[in-house]
Amino acid sequence: MSKVQYKDTVFKVKGYQVPGKQPMFFCVESGNFKIYIDKVGGEAPSPLEYLLASLAGCINIVANIVAKEMNVNIENLEVEVEGVFNAEKLYTGKGGRAGYKEIKAKIRIKSSAPREQLEKLIKAVEERCPVSDNLAERTPVTLVLE
Amino acid sequence: MSKVQYKDTVFKVKGYQVPGKQPMFFCVESGNFKIYIDKVGGEAPSPLEYLLASLAGCINIVANIVAKEMNVNIENLEVEVEGVFNAEKLYTGKGGRAGYKEIKAKIRIKSSAPREQLEKLIKAVEERCPVSDNLAERTPVTLVLE
Repeated sequence: MSKVQYKDTVFKVKGYQVPGKQPMFFCVESGNFKIYIDKVGGEAPSPLEYLLASLAGCINIVANIVAKEMNVNIENLEVEVEGVFNAEKLYTGKGGRAGYKEIKAKIRIKSSAPREQLEKLIKAVEERCPVSDNLAERTPVTLVLE
Repeated sequence: MSKVQYKDTVFKVKGYQVPGKQPMFFCVESGNFKIYIDKVGGEAPSPLEYLLASLAGCINIVANIVAKEMNVNIENLEVEVEGVFNAEKLYTGKGGRAGYKEIKAKIRIKSSAPREQLEKLIKAVEERCPVSDNLAERTPVTLVLE
């Protein structure tokens, strides 16, 4: 009997300001990909938008993994993600929390499976989705000045 | 004397599968922007990569905001972000946490300001960065099947 061994993997990205652009415009390289990020209302999506997009994309991937295990067919899947944000802490250093106060994902699945099965699928996605876990639970985050 | 009133803002994104692509490939629209997301090793960055990129971009933006307040000049800023991940929970539903176990951001700033000032700046960034807050602290995340 073979058993898959899951080892820790390190994901790494590197970001830098882009010559000729204002300093809040940032290019982040991840492997061969370049992700462009700007302040809210700028030339590229903001970090707050990427955070919600990351959750949306993760829900889709995990739903596909779990659906295969459950023998549930997914013909189509859509996710809308909303986050409630207040900029006071960011701009003044005072007030409530700096990040989203709450995040809600509405998921629409086109499938021949009964609703009960799809509810079960979403419950498993909630438990197994990496991005959902990193948002819902505490994660040690360290900022180091080199 | 005028005082800025900070009101709650709702950020919203909408994601969907893309016809002609495998189902894990996802397009997320945020306003006029389209963010493409795929599984790890796919045609676009994965949610795990976007999560780290989002933190990198947010650190840069907040550092620029705080630097202006502190009268610190930033000639250049680079961030490397690393996250330690284990896929066991994602693929089996068992094991440790689903998301990153820890996230570390190394920040390099080119500035004429003394190191002590830059350390103070990074401390303020840590407190005021929205993405850092959403990762480091618990956030209510709800997944709803429509």
